[in-house]
Amino acid sequence: MAKSLIESVPNFSEGRRTDVIEAIVAPFRRQKGCYLLDHRADPDHNRLVVSVVGQAEPIQEALLAASLVAVEKIDLNTHRGAHPRIGAIDVIPFVPLRNISMAECVQVAHAFGQRFQQTTGVPVYFYEEAALRPQRTALEVIRKGQYESLRLEVTQPERHPDIGEPRLHPTAGATIIGARKFLIAFNVNLATSNIEVARQIAKAIRSSSGGLGSVKGIGLALEERGMVQVSMNVVDYERNALYRIVEFIRMEARRWGVAIAETEVYGMVPAAALLDSISYYMQTTQFDPGQVIELAILEQLGDEEKE
Amino acid sequence: MAKSLIESVPNFSEGRRTDVIEAIVAPFRRQKGCYLLDHRADPDHNRLVVSVVGQAEPIQEALLAASLVAVEKIDLNTHRGAHPRIGAIDVIPFVPLRNISMAECVQVAHAFGQRFQQTTGVPVYFYEEAALRPQRTALEVIRKGQYESLRLEVTQPERHPDIGEPRLHPTAGATIIGARKFLIAFNVNLATSNIEVARQIAKAIRSSSGGLGSVKGIGLALEERGMVQVSMNVVDYERNALYRIVEFIRMEARRWGVAIAETEVYGMVPAAALLDSISYYMQTTQFDPGQVIELAILEQLGDEEKE
Repeated sequence: MAKSLIESVPNFSEGRRTDVIEAIVAPFRRQKGCYLLDHRADPDHNRLVVSVVGQAEPIQEALLAASLVAVEKIDLNTHRGAHPRIGAIDVIPFVPLRNISMAECVQVAHAFGQRFQQTTGVPVYFYEEAALRPQRTALEVIRKGQYESLRLEVTQPERHPDIGEPRLHPTAGATIIGARKFLIAFNVNLATSNIEVARQIAKAIRSSSGGLGSVKGIGLALEERGMVQVSMNVVDYERNALYRIVEFIRMEARRWGVAIAETEVYGMVPAAALLDSISYYMQTTQFDPGQVIELAILEQLGDEEKE
Repeated sequence: MAKSLIESVPNFSEGRRTDVIEAIVAPFRRQKGCYLLDHRADPDHNRLVVSVVGQAEPIQEALLAASLVAVEKIDLNTHRGAHPRIGAIDVIPFVPLRNISMAECVQVAHAFGQRFQQTTGVPVYFYEEAALRPQRTALEVIRKGQYESLRLEVTQPERHPDIGEPRLHPTAGATIIGARKFLIAFNVNLATSNIEVARQIAKAIRSSSGGLGSVKGIGLALEERGMVQVSMNVVDYERNALYRIVEFIRMEARRWGVAIAETEVYGMVPAAALLDSISYYMQTTQFDPGQVIELAILEQLGDEEKE
């Protein structure tokens, strides 16, 4: 399994009915060679986010089985939720984790997209690295106006799906499939209640206003705790290491005499992202991930499973 | 397998004959549920150090098989090497890694010692946490005078083995078996060629001269590199975290205006030892090792194998 490892984070439009949620998650639990890491259902968003890793084949099998459940159980015509969506299976990204390139993940996304549409009858749009039209790189462009608008506009050539006829599935809408890098949700909490400090630092660090190229961020108040937060998505941790983000924020916060109170990795993180930062702080030169007992074991388990 | 995980680092008295080394290592490669992480043969020491992890049962099976090879192939009467030894299988420690306590590892050591002596005919001394006599906690006490002296002194009550008759095996000597904590070999290189700086800092940090309780250390010259090194064994990384050792040395080195050039983790390290230090430097509160993808996968693989 460790030989090549993909992550997928499928988003389904069901965050309330526990029986449906469990039925969608079941194939990921059941599938051999596929590891369910996390699943979170948000009733307000009415959305289920699953995090799963494994080799390309078993992941696709489980995704197809879960998608068939979602098509059967979810009707977008009656679905309401705070999160924008165009389909019962709204988004399926493939993320390279170990011993697999982005180019190979793009191939997986394209091949899976074909099979998905044939199996479910749901039309497919490709996004991010797997986008076939440059303007469809961003999820937001594809999802513009959500299900309710896309249902009407899908007949227009610029909104045609990449796979399937130019009409949505009558109850399951459409699905956005693609390949992207691993995304780390990372927050830095500051020892001040002044929201302006968090906003200014978020502005300084995020790529959209000229900061670090792979960081998205906003400033938030954590009112109950009397702190403020720079809340970030790190979309490429190899280009923008976590330690660099922490030290960048520490440096900016000095302008107001504000200290970092704590940081927060939200959700999953690959070992490599942490090892890189520990190497920086502890100045470990020539450290090999294979020196970490658990990673060495995982590598050997991968060898065994190959046979 | 991840459900409970032991490390063993058996030391065999053969560091030169590659066919014998390979024959000793083979059972660790072969045994299911047992993962050979590393093996290093040192011709000067004439000694082989194997690092292996797994569940208690398969580890013991592989250790017995490897020991039978060592008894057959190694004759202490003709063995010469720089490293002190009393047996063909000189030392076998059991180290708790995951989901197993030190008390359980002591039980494993005691049960294994019985079985080892019955299978090989080699008498056994217990050391460290598994010591049955308080003065035998330290390896050095048991190994005093090496094979050549112990062969004569073994008839004296204070040198009787813990298991077996009071005489050594005619060719394989005796074996020291025990339980201890995970040992991390950790070096800090300083940007100076002044050996006195490394010696003074080693003295300040090591437990034997009143420093940190779980650190052993000496100062060495790295002459080719124009640096000096504080070379350490961390015998309990939970009590003396790596970050604390780095920052302690950084603080001491300031006395001479000397900076840390680099640090070096030598050999294997458990993920927990690194995660603890990353939490310190990055101020990640409430970080759960289960958030690291690779550790989460390993935990699930453990569940599967239990069935």
